[in-house]
Amino acid sequence: MSASPETPAADAVTTATATDAAASNPTPAPAPVTVLGLGPMGRALASAFVAAGHPTTVWNRTEGKADELVAQGATAASTPAEAVAASELVVICVIDYAASGSILEAAGDAIKGRTLVNLTADSPDRARAAATWATERGADYLDGTILTPTVTIGTPDAVFLFSGPEALYETHRATFASLGGTATYQGADYGRAAAYDVALLDFFWTSVSGLMHAFALGKKENVAARDLAPFARGILDILPPIMDLLAGNVDDGVYPGDDSHIISVAAGIDHVIHAADDRGMDTGVLRAARAVAQRAIDEGNGTDGIERLAEVLGRPAA
Amino acid sequence: MSASPETPAADAVTTATATDAAASNPTPAPAPVTVLGLGPMGRALASAFVAAGHPTTVWNRTEGKADELVAQGATAASTPAEAVAASELVVICVIDYAASGSILEAAGDAIKGRTLVNLTADSPDRARAAATWATERGADYLDGTILTPTVTIGTPDAVFLFSGPEALYETHRATFASLGGTATYQGADYGRAAAYDVALLDFFWTSVSGLMHAFALGKKENVAARDLAPFARGILDILPPIMDLLAGNVDDGVYPGDDSHIISVAAGIDHVIHAADDRGMDTGVLRAARAVAQRAIDEGNGTDGIERLAEVLGRPAA
Repeated sequence: MSASPETPAADAVTTATATDAAASNPTPAPAPVTVLGLGPMGRALASAFVAAGHPTTVWNRTEGKADELVAQGATAASTPAEAVAASELVVICVIDYAASGSILEAAGDAIKGRTLVNLTADSPDRARAAATWATERGADYLDGTILTPTVTIGTPDAVFLFSGPEALYETHRATFASLGGTATYQGADYGRAAAYDVALLDFFWTSVSGLMHAFALGKKENVAARDLAPFARGILDILPPIMDLLAGNVDDGVYPGDDSHIISVAAGIDHVIHAADDRGMDTGVLRAARAVAQRAIDEGNGTDGIERLAEVLGRPAA
Repeated sequence: MSASPETPAADAVTTATATDAAASNPTPAPAPVTVLGLGPMGRALASAFVAAGHPTTVWNRTEGKADELVAQGATAASTPAEAVAASELVVICVIDYAASGSILEAAGDAIKGRTLVNLTADSPDRARAAATWATERGADYLDGTILTPTVTIGTPDAVFLFSGPEALYETHRATFASLGGTATYQGADYGRAAAYDVALLDFFWTSVSGLMHAFALGKKENVAARDLAPFARGILDILPPIMDLLAGNVDDGVYPGDDSHIISVAAGIDHVIHAADDRGMDTGVLRAARAVAQRAIDEGNGTDGIERLAEVLGRPAA
């Protein structure tokens, strides 16, 4: 997932102060680190560690991926066990938790006493299950989420979230800082970083889906996507100023419909569905969104504000 | 719909120069104007006309709505016919085209020779039908869309689009300028302004639906919407810089999947659906979006970029 928060959310969580040891030794030598998985993100992470002076060991299921990193100064391990044995801190970033699980299985007893930091993107329950698996085998575990694209890694634009034992996060905080940008500790729940990730993926891909549908609808009406794009950017300007208000109302279960209520939103979506049907388009997403509004209306909450939809969406469809 | 375009799209369309008459008389007296429909937007429009010195006649189906405008200097008409008779230029802004049609029907022969400017939000085909209806009855017709909230009317932030006969737009351009902000002429197709409107509504409400689902999913995982909001704002920062690239690719039918292809997007959506199902949520919108990705994959285009989805969405679901 990719997101640079406008304001860091760190103020919402407790962040431990530096340990006395760190305070008395403010610039320790960069700690050894192992990176498992050398897809585009894994390579970016390993490259940032190398650039920051960490003795960096890398491993990938297929071998060629390590060549450029080795040229930069990394050491290539030939097995997961060898890679895990090389560093007390082991970062893993692969396609999903099924993949990270099989790699860590392959490392066998080597993971005992290691700190595993899983930056793989997946769902919260899978992050929690991975933590249980690792801790049962004698490893410490932190889960993390990277909210910005690979090109940001090692730059001030990178954004990382971590969750798991806070003391563990503090122990390795200086190493994480080598990845650049902003890292925030989000809490002891191993699944919490992944919870942010899936929620933000949810918002992003739904929005992109809407943008593609808007471009398609415009084209059907002879409005080029290029001509629509400046106005679509304008549309995006509407949400940031009202985001905190909407969020607070969702948290508080307060649904004022003063500016725009669900019945009028439903009428607006109906115009869009009508226009899209008229042009023979796929209207599945719009119909699904319209159905959610209808649930609110049928439950007698049609004059509530759009924040009510979050409450409706929290319950399964009939 | 509400959108302030980052850059005006006026450069994409031909804009006529001022007429010789206007050039020789750069500050004509503000022309009389009639506003039919005094909902929040209609009142804002009428108020802006009054403030700019236009002799302004107003009408609403229910009477109390005109009181404040009359206090400002407007004249209240008691029937649509009386209101339409008062000004050569008639602006109408009501809930939908069914409503605008019945009001204009009620005005009868009074519309002959008038210029009707319909700022009601609805679909392109209904705008075209309204234009046909009006011109067959001897009225001139322009259709318009207001892309910004009521509070922007009369301020530099207002954004209006117009479509219909260009000469007619030019004739009344100075009057439209009294509404503030930016007005652009989008072309002769009477439905074109409405096409922008429905496409932008499409993007906006789909995105809002995704935001509400993200807030709901976060809450299920004990992430407060307030804590998620700063990162959700960060997510919004991703799209503007790539909007023109995506739009150009959609227009050109080019779907490079270098950064993110449809198969990986589908995997990401699967993570979200898994997490939401796990918490007993409504996943209708996500499943509909996932189904569109699957159509692309089934058609052999899974390694195309997300722009391919606009092409898929242009065709009806099986």
